[in-house]
Amino acid sequence: MKLLEEKILSCGKVLPGNVLKVDGFLNHRINVELIDALGEEFYRLFSSYTDINKILTVESSGIAIACAAARHFKVPVVFAKKGNNANVGRDVYSAEVFSFTKGTSCTINISKKYLGPEDCVLIIDDFLANGEACKGMIKMIEEAGAKLAGIGIAIEKGFQPGGKELRAMGIPVKSLVIVDSMTDDSISFRDDD
Amino acid sequence: MKLLEEKILSCGKVLPGNVLKVDGFLNHRINVELIDALGEEFYRLFSSYTDINKILTVESSGIAIACAAARHFKVPVVFAKKGNNANVGRDVYSAEVFSFTKGTSCTINISKKYLGPEDCVLIIDDFLANGEACKGMIKMIEEAGAKLAGIGIAIEKGFQPGGKELRAMGIPVKSLVIVDSMTDDSISFRDDD
Repeated sequence: MKLLEEKILSCGKVLPGNVLKVDGFLNHRINVELIDALGEEFYRLFSSYTDINKILTVESSGIAIACAAARHFKVPVVFAKKGNNANVGRDVYSAEVFSFTKGTSCTINISKKYLGPEDCVLIIDDFLANGEACKGMIKMIEEAGAKLAGIGIAIEKGFQPGGKELRAMGIPVKSLVIVDSMTDDSISFRDDD
Repeated sequence: MKLLEEKILSCGKVLPGNVLKVDGFLNHRINVELIDALGEEFYRLFSSYTDINKILTVESSGIAIACAAARHFKVPVVFAKKGNNANVGRDVYSAEVFSFTKGTSCTINISKKYLGPEDCVLIIDDFLANGEACKGMIKMIEEAGAKLAGIGIAIEKGFQPGGKELRAMGIPVKSLVIVDSMTDDSISFRDDD
């Protein structure tokens, strides 16, 4: 998606440890107009998956784009909550997720009230690197007996294994941009299919 | 706001310790259509404040309604990040906030890049009880030399002191609903002005 590539090139910053900082428009300061365009694009990419009745993401940075997509699908968003004191009650699906950026592990939880066998789920998230958050959500979707329609990602780091592994599992993974490589002064994107 | 009152009555649940659980539509499962209506209402309430150029909230549950409001104001959202490893860099405004629901204290941070003297800020949040999160954001707005236009709240607990204290400071606080009292089997709302 050209619009997002341009925004990354103009506002993104590469930090040590393969961190791509996009907090100017995606996950600290939110450019709502851009987020809305991403949501519309997710809808275009997954519009043939007519069974989708729920969008799943993880707090916090997935929430804005998940809502922007959900508006077009006309379905609710459920966001997995982080931490053990996550105020979601005790009857939850849980998964352990390692955060690439923070270098720490945390538990994510979804109340069993909000995910079940009747659900066909689209996962939306801001980043895909090693795929830890997605794998955690997939585990919970399986435990709930729900169906996974696919995964929509804003920025995939193509040089890390998450995307490849998830696609090898047969899951439709569609990323708005895939970063193939990045250095302090250059970011190169994979060409669209 | 009648729509939100009805939703609270049909889906909200009162838990011990004065907790009003609205995770079915606001802060775990998100009813995007409802959230959009709340965003529109915030715009109506603050539309005469034409200087607003930024909406400020706290992760996570404020993000969705802040974005829904920001779409109408055509301004960006900045959400304060929780925790010391918040991945916002070191050049930040910080405040200590006590969470009423979780019974714990945490640090919230905003990068100095995203709040400054040029900003006229509308704070949007899901709940107002003791006003801790708002007071933390106000402290950061003051430190940044920014202007506070007002505070928009989805659900104010009128029997806790936050709203009264903030209004006594001369801040325009507009809540979509004010809960005057609640018990296990009844919730009563303050009449609209």
